[in-house]
This record gives sequence, C-alpha cells and structure tokens, in this order.
Amino acid sequence: MNSINLREKLALFDEHWSPKIIAEVDGYDVKLAKIEGEFVWHSHADADELFLVLEGEFTMAFRDHEEAVREGEIVVVPAGVEHKPIAENECSILLLEKKGLVNTGDAGGELTSEAIRI
Amino acid sequence: MNSINLREKLALFDEHWSPKIIAEVDGYDVKLAKIEGEFVWHSHADADELFLVLEGEFTMAFRDHEEAVREGEIVVVPAGVEHKPIAENECSILLLEKKGLVNTGDAGGELTSEAIRI
Repeated sequence: MNSINLREKLALFDEHWSPKIIAEVDGYDVKLAKIEGEFVWHSHADADELFLVLEGEFTMAFRDHEEAVREGEIVVVPAGVEHKPIAENECSILLLEKKGLVNTGDAGGELTSEAIRI
Repeated sequence: MNSINLREKLALFDEHWSPKIIAEVDGYDVKLAKIEGEFVWHSHADADELFLVLEGEFTMAFRDHEEAVREGEIVVVPAGVEHKPIAENECSILLLEKKGLVNTGDAGGELTSEAIRI
C-alpha cells in the first residue's frame, strides 16, 4: 500500500521489449517497458491489453490501420486482435495485462521475455 | 482500437469525485476522476483498486498510515482495505477498477456516483 514512482522504476532497467512488473491489481499485472524498434506481429487469444505512453511515442500497427500513441495517451488492444508496436525512438510505456500473459502472445520467438518484478 | 488522450478526456468534465469511464480492459474499467477535498472512509470487499496521479497530488489515508501519491505515482488499494483519498488541491487521477465497482464501496452516502462513459 505504498506509492510507486513510475520514473524511479523506469530508471532501474534499460533493456527494450522486456516488461517489468511493478504492481498487481486482482489478477492483472501492471508493468513498465521501454520499447524501441519493431516488435513482432502477435495476438493474445484471451486477454485485452492496455498501453499507456509515459515518455515518447510509438505506433501501434493493426492489420487494417496504424495508430499513433503519444505521451499521455492510451490504447487498448482487444483479445484476439493482431498488433505490432513500433517505436522509432525509445518510448516508455505502462502496460496492464492479465497475469501470465506472454509478451509475444501466439507468435513466440526470440523477443519472448518473462516479466520479473522490480 | 483508437488512442485516447487523457488530457482531452479530462477537459470534458469538472465535477469532483465522479469517475468517468474512458476504456475497458477485459472486465475492468479505466476511469478518470478529478478529486478535491476529503472523500469518505470505505472499502471494496472483492476488488483491488489502482490509482495513478496524472496531475497534482493527493493523500491516501489508511487506518494505520497516510501515503502521499504524487504526479507519476501509483498506489494500489487491496480488496477489503479501508481507505480515504484526500486532496488539498484539485488532483486528476486515472483509476483501474473491476466493472461495476461503486466509488464509495461499502460506505454509500451522498458521494456515491455512477460512472458514465465519456
């Protein structure tokens, strides 16, 4: 029940595409991540996924359009919808995801990362 | 699947202690609220509750301590834990709460507000 400072937590890691758990809400993890470059196309069959941009901006690619997501903006990706985050420059995001969700979803591959708590 | 700008949504309302729904993630609502003054002591028996400060700061009072929550900080109130938000000056927050959660929890009373979607 202590407050958690997002910038202090972001300062604890540098790697990209490797979300860190900072809090839990019922069966959901609140995570922070730094992203840069292009992720992989993937979807999460049973879980919506929320992205909030804390610093910078990124593009969420869907199969039918691309959505710019800037600092102070959120986007929710519904369960089952294919998406691919792309960040031209480093971007820091907060994620809300069902516990146990794998970052690469159905795609797997080398960018798969197990979230640790920081 | 469009991005949602938090400041634009905050500009749509002025009232205090009246959370507005801006997005859904599975069975949870993402809400925005403006708070000022003292809320009521209450708890939510079956739901954790996440608060993220977007602008300003507030104090989350628990029965055994008070926690300052500043801009860019989050606090999670576990299910069943009595709490009372207090904001000396106006503060804008993002909330994540199980769908159907009542803002005043077990306490009820005149500050009870049904969340509408904006």
